Amino acid sequence: MAVGEVVLGSNQYGKAEVRLVRVTRDTPVHEIEDLTVTTQLRGDFAACHTTGDNAQVVATDTQKNTVYAFARQFGVGSPERFLLRLARHFVDGFDQVTGGRFAADVHAWDRIAVDGEPHDHAFVRTGRETRRTVVQVDGDDVHVVSGFTGATVLKSTGSEFWGFPRDAYTTLPETKDRVLATSVTAWWRWADPDVDFEARYPVVRDLLLATFAQVHSLALQHTIFEMGRAVLEACDDVAEVRLSCPNKHHFLVDLEPFGLDNPNEVFYAADRPYGLIEADVRREGDPPVPHVWASVPGFV
Amino acid sequence: MAVGEVVLGSNQYGKAEVRLVRVTRDTPVHEIEDLTVTTQLRGDFAACHTTGDNAQVVATDTQKNTVYAFARQFGVGSPERFLLRLARHFVDGFDQVTGGRFAADVHAWDRIAVDGEPHDHAFVRTGRETRRTVVQVDGDDVHVVSGFTGATVLKSTGSEFWGFPRDAYTTLPETKDRVLATSVTAWWRWADPDVDFEARYPVVRDLLLATFAQVHSLALQHTIFEMGRAVLEACDDVAEVRLSCPNKHHFLVDLEPFGLDNPNEVFYAADRPYGLIEADVRREGDPPVPHVWASVPGFV
Amino acid sequence: MAVGEVVLGSNQYGKAEVRLVRVTRDTPVHEIEDLTVTTQLRGDFAACHTTGDNAQVVATDTQKNTVYAFARQFGVGSPERFLLRLARHFVDGFDQVTGGRFAADVHAWDRIAVDGEPHDHAFVRTGRETRRTVVQVDGDDVHVVSGFTGATVLKSTGSEFWGFPRDAYTTLPETKDRVLATSVTAWWRWADPDVDFEARYPVVRDLLLATFAQVHSLALQHTIFEMGRAVLEACDDVAEVRLSCPNKHHFLVDLEPFGLDNPNEVFYAADRPYGLIEADVRREGDPPVPHVWASVPGFV
Amino acid sequence: MAVGEVVLGSNQYGKAEVRLVRVTRDTPVHEIEDLTVTTQLRGDFAACHTTGDNAQVVATDTQKNTVYAFARQFGVGSPERFLLRLARHFVDGFDQVTGGRFAADVHAWDRIAVDGEPHDHAFVRTGRETRRTVVQVDGDDVHVVSGFTGATVLKSTGSEFWGFPRDAYTTLPETKDRVLATSVTAWWRWADPDVDFEARYPVVRDLLLATFAQVHSLALQHTIFEMGRAVLEACDDVAEVRLSCPNKHHFLVDLEPFGLDNPNEVFYAADRPYGLIEADVRREGDPPVPHVWASVPGFV
Repeated sequence: MAVGEVVLGSNQYGKAEVRLVRVTRDTPVHEIEDLTVTTQLRGDFAACHTTGDNAQVVATDTQKNTVYAFARQFGVGSPERFLLRLARHFVDGFDQVTGGRFAADVHAWDRIAVDGEPHDHAFVRTGRETRRTVVQVDGDDVHVVSGFTGATVLKSTGSEFWGFPRDAYTTLPETKDRVLATSVTAWWRWADPDVDFEARYPVVRDLLLATFAQVHSLALQHTIFEMGRAVLEACDDVAEVRLSCPNKHHFLVDLEPFGLDNPNEVFYAADRPYGLIEADVRREGDPPVPHVWASVPGFV
Repeated sequence: MAVGEVVLGSNQYGKAEVRLVRVTRDTPVHEIEDLTVTTQLRGDFAACHTTGDNAQVVATDTQKNTVYAFARQFGVGSPERFLLRLARHFVDGFDQVTGGRFAADVHAWDRIAVDGEPHDHAFVRTGRETRRTVVQVDGDDVHVVSGFTGATVLKSTGSEFWGFPRDAYTTLPETKDRVLATSVTAWWRWADPDVDFEARYPVVRDLLLATFAQVHSLALQHTIFEMGRAVLEACDDVAEVRLSCPNKHHFLVDLEPFGLDNPNEVFYAADRPYGLIEADVRREGDPPVPHVWASVPGFV
Repeated sequence: MAVGEVVLGSNQYGKAEVRLVRVTRDTPVHEIEDLTVTTQLRGDFAACHTTGDNAQVVATDTQKNTVYAFARQFGVGSPERFLLRLARHFVDGFDQVTGGRFAADVHAWDRIAVDGEPHDHAFVRTGRETRRTVVQVDGDDVHVVSGFTGATVLKSTGSEFWGFPRDAYTTLPETKDRVLATSVTAWWRWADPDVDFEARYPVVRDLLLATFAQVHSLALQHTIFEMGRAVLEACDDVAEVRLSCPNKHHFLVDLEPFGLDNPNEVFYAADRPYGLIEADVRREGDPPVPHVWASVPGFV
Repeated sequence: MAVGEVVLGSNQYGKAEVRLVRVTRDTPVHEIEDLTVTTQLRGDFAACHTTGDNAQVVATDTQKNTVYAFARQFGVGSPERFLLRLARHFVDGFDQVTGGRFAADVHAWDRIAVDGEPHDHAFVRTGRETRRTVVQVDGDDVHVVSGFTGATVLKSTGSEFWGFPRDAYTTLPETKDRVLATSVTAWWRWADPDVDFEARYPVVRDLLLATFAQVHSLALQHTIFEMGRAVLEACDDVAEVRLSCPNKHHFLVDLEPFGLDNPNEVFYAADRPYGLIEADVRREGDPPVPHVWASVPGFV
């Protein structure tokens, strides 16, 4: 092959956003699991790309069918566990599949309260954060990343921003008391895939939110790092934390023209532009794994 | 004026989606109110339309300023009460303003839990339903409609659909047990604007959701009517209930090709198309008010 | 029936957002029609609501099937004509159906250019406005409304706004030259449903946009009225025009702190809040039809 | 520093989605440029994260101001050129800034036609694809990636899919004639940043779309590879092409129950799930640059 010939580089394909709802109805008290699942296979698919030969292409429709069949055969359990099983099925079952990326969003439901009691089989979607996971497999190399998106949080005080450099384009005043708000996208990489994900997810999530609340913030960067640090210090099973947080600006409205003061009471919540702070927090000495993070959404 | 001359018909104008966050910080335990407010004035604005004479046009920027100033001067309290005050300001304060439409969405926040205790000044957005209100004023005629959108609910059993007519285009099988899911858009018109809106809103909302849960459904129409009936029978201060509910189809996945049964366990949650059921529930003898409902969003 | 008993008020139901793509392949030069269709029936459906008796309920699944079957049997032609045929089928074919609301969005496609020539069977979505229509039938009473949404237009000059009243909450400066931008939602009601809709739609649309361009604007209200007037004066077959136009504010950026002037060159395009101007333009003496407009989306 | 201590990993921060509209009004025939700009700085920002010391933190508000000031001082020209200038300003002007990521979306406008002539200062948004660019700088290392998102294309014939393996979960029938539709997200990396971007962008875009049209497709993978190959073979200044294409399934509707055939005429356009095909096309021997692609959105 001559240098300069056009060739296929990295590639993956699969079925995206398979909407799966599983009802467990062994007793009159039903359980529901609601996921949006994506499977993407990696391996030897060059012939399909370069000549249209599909002999190695596990159809995306087959991948979708497998998701539904596995939900019946094995249940879901946790999204991470469900994806790990799917990954093994494809990687072990097909020679041409050497690895893949498997992702899920989890849509959480509460029971509807009737006379103060949770109903047996009626549910209402909780709309707080969306739990997510990405499982990546390359042969026997397995990485599980868990996280969430859409947790919108706000501190009405306990946030400062000052001491930044002032150049010819700087007009921002310093502040010792501002509203700090963000919509947290958080991901953490488990040190090992042998985790009780259902038990551990709420622990990490709650720790992230509690740390946001407790840190007296000198910058959103400062808050984010402390959130990551809190998780790494408390959780040995977490290897690395990544956070992407828009600074959802709340501007104090100038009421002086109307003869009114505004002692940090009335704010305009702006849409765009917004600050965008992204950081990775890890342990000194741990080798970085950029190939894992390249396939985790929510960072740019 | 000759018949056939082009004239201005109904019209309104104002500022839409003013993002207002108000912090109450009288004590270390802060409160936040987060609203998206729209004001629209009706009255004698023909000159602006037909000749570009703005002498009567209260600028939309002025309307926005008024929203923020009022939040400082009077607080919010309840969205309905806040809009009623704004409405009176414009209708009473400007001769050319004879009425208007005033609307708000409410974005709810919970306190972040730290060590099991609610934090003083750190909050997380609750993402369940969005509370909404529309206030309409025409001189002394005042109508307040409250409601919500985005409450996604699901019953994993207790829903049937059969006995419908079969014509040449009917293929749907009958069912005695299906998943019933919808995203409730509900509005109710208060008999009188003198209501303790903060106290009454959760009562009506909870009653609607509890009724969804409790009704053994023979059709989504049947469920919706019972939801409205429950409110009207329990709440003398509610004059009318309107519901718009997409039937979010959950199709049982056919697993037979894979040698598996599927006893109402594994479902595909479809996006489109969806059934769409809309109904008004009222009391016999009450006069209908279509002009009020014409300006309430969420119906088509 | 005692006064005060809970009863069913206005109601409608049907299948929403049926995604229909029809390919005409009589010759090697294919044509495609791409619609999102909604059907909603009105009539005698009280028994279903109040007792769960579905004997009168034409299933929404049947309505969907009918849409697809009619696309094969009769083609589409124009969205208005397609909906009129569907309407007649349901109203004439079922005693309990006395009327309905039938709506469609049209997704337009261009041919992909290859070596400057339009391709026979490869297309690219045009993303400008979305053509829409709503057909409403009540027995023999038929109303057809056509329009579009999402036409974003901007004038970089030729727009003023001054002479508005100044009260205690007014801070907006007057301007003799501003950027005027909006996203036009336009609807027009045809005087009679016997129209060559395919020929007439682009005429009305182009006239609306050209008038936006040509009017030296003294207010967005002024522009909107002239847009409606232009259509009514040029088109005898149009009975009424409704426009809903957000004032998409473009704020001149203050560059003075950086030692720069800004002679109407650099603007910040804001998201929210926005002005919202809605007006109906009609002919003197024509009776208003609020019941028709109550079911046309895009106004509040 | 002990192994295991929590440390800051990779990080970046900046202002996202600065909405910039620039009007060039040197003559009565105005020009407009409409961009959404994001700047993100990389460098020595550890102190801010770990101790809240902002002495090195160029405020995101300052970054926004710089965008607007540069638009006045230097104009825009092309989004790539505009971002390269911004990048140099930050990297060369601040010791602590060693690099960054700079991105822009371009919103295209046509002139409104009045009597068949393009208007001098009135425009309408073209809604086809959104042109995008990402510029990444690390010291003197500069990479420019250009592309677009949202080009929805469809072939009504000339697409097959057969010969794929059949396992226990395969039910998909083979087809020799199907509708092929996708929404193209395409990115290409320029070999050198010294390109006439305005001239070259439409050439690459048109070549990608024309190739989609012309390839007789045996799989979406096959089409995508040919699209990338066509660009690399025709454009020496392009080093690499990446494509991410959802397979927007159009399912033939089964009309047999209604006594109708359906010779590839009537289709249901599904929303979810969808196939998702992602591939990189490059030249043999060129070193891969995964760190560049890690910050380009649209892949997972």
